[in-house]
Amino acid sequence: MARTSLIERLIEAFQVLPGVGPKSAQRMVLFLLQRNRPGGRNLAEVMLDALDRVGECESCRNLTETPRCRLCEDPRRDDRLLCVVESPADILALEHAGGFRGRYFVLHGHLSPIDGVGPVELELGRLERRVRENPPEELILATNPTVEGEATAHYISELLKDLVPTITRIAHGVPLGGELEFIDGGTLVHALQGRRSIR
Amino acid sequence: MARTSLIERLIEAFQVLPGVGPKSAQRMVLFLLQRNRPGGRNLAEVMLDALDRVGECESCRNLTETPRCRLCEDPRRDDRLLCVVESPADILALEHAGGFRGRYFVLHGHLSPIDGVGPVELELGRLERRVRENPPEELILATNPTVEGEATAHYISELLKDLVPTITRIAHGVPLGGELEFIDGGTLVHALQGRRSIR
Repeated sequence: MARTSLIERLIEAFQVLPGVGPKSAQRMVLFLLQRNRPGGRNLAEVMLDALDRVGECESCRNLTETPRCRLCEDPRRDDRLLCVVESPADILALEHAGGFRGRYFVLHGHLSPIDGVGPVELELGRLERRVRENPPEELILATNPTVEGEATAHYISELLKDLVPTITRIAHGVPLGGELEFIDGGTLVHALQGRRSIR
Repeated sequence: MARTSLIERLIEAFQVLPGVGPKSAQRMVLFLLQRNRPGGRNLAEVMLDALDRVGECESCRNLTETPRCRLCEDPRRDDRLLCVVESPADILALEHAGGFRGRYFVLHGHLSPIDGVGPVELELGRLERRVRENPPEELILATNPTVEGEATAHYISELLKDLVPTITRIAHGVPLGGELEFIDGGTLVHALQGRRSIR
């Protein structure tokens, strides 16, 4: 008798999305059904298409609908620089910021022994193979500035130190627009240690 | 060359949802592709199904996948009470609150001459027909306590005053848990005017 209606099932289904609870799911469902059915249909169709066709780039492990991603296929990118990040979102952020014209490699995570993620689970062999096949002059480790990200960067630098002439880590310091007063001590220590001459 | 990728199209498509901007759309897309493809597939399929099959209840105009909605079909609901609301979301809120066992009618909006929405555009003839076909003993006007909602309630009460013995308006007053100090003057005036004896 109390069979779940299609609307209830859709409200439920929307709650798989990050940051979407019962209230906002209901709002989204009613909005689509009442105000924007073409937009909802397009969203659902593009979503199925993406779920079918998007996989990992065979070279850099970025998400892509082609065997190799556009960044790996782009002949204008600089093969001498290889930037290692934890997730595809990091590539989007770096590309959005602009300024980097090299290649990327996505780890899809970080070393985390407590969660059972070691070098094998993180498939660091794939990064090693990538570096051996097409060695960069500089490997930039852009993992997150967390304990796990730092440990991962350290491990990779040890792993690849004989294959790459230069291995660097992105700078930690005071973010632009940040006020010293509100910045944590660890960041301030890094900002002081990493100080540079301005003249 | 700079053809839009499937991922970019999906991030764009997600932004039709209310409250979803570029940042949260990107977060949702990466989450689905990396962490929960079955959940994303289910969401897209239920969405297409709902967009195909959900329409208006022929009796009360609530959203439903059947010709008449479950509330209209439920023989245990009280035909003597008919509650008029602006949107299906209002029915969900009232049903969630519990306590009302009558029938509903959804206006899908309110009178708003400035937007060109008059009695004809709001299809108030459908409400009149509904009331003539199965006259309730009491018509409860539960439009929103806004200028337009009040005007709509007033117009409906004039339109149907000869067809229904009792026409009522939901109470305006201090919400439970509200503090008088922070409640607007209009609401306080209503709360005083609507005062009831407690013994």
